[in-house]
Amino acid sequence: MKPVSSLLLLTESLKRLPGVGPKSAQRLAYHLLQHDREGAMSLSATLAEALDKVRHCALCNTFTEEETCVLCRSADRDRTVLCVTETPADQLVIEQTLAFNGLYFVLMGSLSPLDGVGPKELSMGKLLERAGDGVVSEVILATSFHNEGEATAHYISEVLKVRGVRVSRLARGVPVGAELEYVDVGTIARALLDRRVT
Amino acid sequence: MKPVSSLLLLTESLKRLPGVGPKSAQRLAYHLLQHDREGAMSLSATLAEALDKVRHCALCNTFTEEETCVLCRSADRDRTVLCVTETPADQLVIEQTLAFNGLYFVLMGSLSPLDGVGPKELSMGKLLERAGDGVVSEVILATSFHNEGEATAHYISEVLKVRGVRVSRLARGVPVGAELEYVDVGTIARALLDRRVT
Repeated sequence: MKPVSSLLLLTESLKRLPGVGPKSAQRLAYHLLQHDREGAMSLSATLAEALDKVRHCALCNTFTEEETCVLCRSADRDRTVLCVTETPADQLVIEQTLAFNGLYFVLMGSLSPLDGVGPKELSMGKLLERAGDGVVSEVILATSFHNEGEATAHYISEVLKVRGVRVSRLARGVPVGAELEYVDVGTIARALLDRRVT
Repeated sequence: MKPVSSLLLLTESLKRLPGVGPKSAQRLAYHLLQHDREGAMSLSATLAEALDKVRHCALCNTFTEEETCVLCRSADRDRTVLCVTETPADQLVIEQTLAFNGLYFVLMGSLSPLDGVGPKELSMGKLLERAGDGVVSEVILATSFHNEGEATAHYISEVLKVRGVRVSRLARGVPVGAELEYVDVGTIARALLDRRVT
């Protein structure tokens, strides 16, 4: 028995979502058509609308519907510090700490040559322009601490230092609330190296 | 920082998908807008098209784009046997066995009073009409073997037997290829009760 064609096309589209295999794509399609048609309509519509409206902030590269995002337009922010993150989600986490009042630059990814993500794909030119605008005095690298994130931080650091920009990196060390016994050795080694005089 | 509104709406829509929480909805939204805009467009379009075109077969209740589905229209099928399944996916699995040449009736769910799914939601009227058309001589119940599936099978069996229709159920027993040691006790007990003379 051949599945009906528009159902097959929908299943193929769902299969493109990260983490969705053929079986779950089929289940999702059945679920949407049988049990949540309203949700399906809203997903189709909001997806089309977001594709149409959402673009990158001209200054910080995050998602926005305007020319520049709310944060970049705010008069309350310290324009001399620029925090570089990989994703808008990482940016959100830093905002939630309430410990940072500067501006951001969102790379929308991390360097990964094997996946074809080089400096150009990460809007590195836009970042260099931004960091060299004469107002920014420090760039804080807040990329992730996995291999790609570290490589990205290293790359940006090298490129900016040549241009005389002060570059810093989020501190590595023992997480707040952690019991030493359960922290991995690499982290403890790092925390020893980076120990601070109290 | 407030996320931009159409991005928020998209995230909300994605959160309605089964198995997708707030974090994964956000990741999916970012992924679609940043890394797979083509996939996002195709998802939005195929979803809208499927919602528009896909409906239920007038005879067997499965998904189709026509008045009746390919199987129900086929001249090669045995119209005297009706196999009742919960979903089109279950129907597909039975087709793949090549061990059945009759027609189907797809309930599109199983009885679950707590979730508001009663006989009416399962198109039970349509099934009774179909099973009592004078051509069908046997109804094979192929609902799942979990509680809801068993309850559904029991209900249909009672309703149809009153009407003089012959009703059977898929055999329960030890799966093909299984080592007895690893089969659960309930299944083995059932296999003992339902043992067949060879």
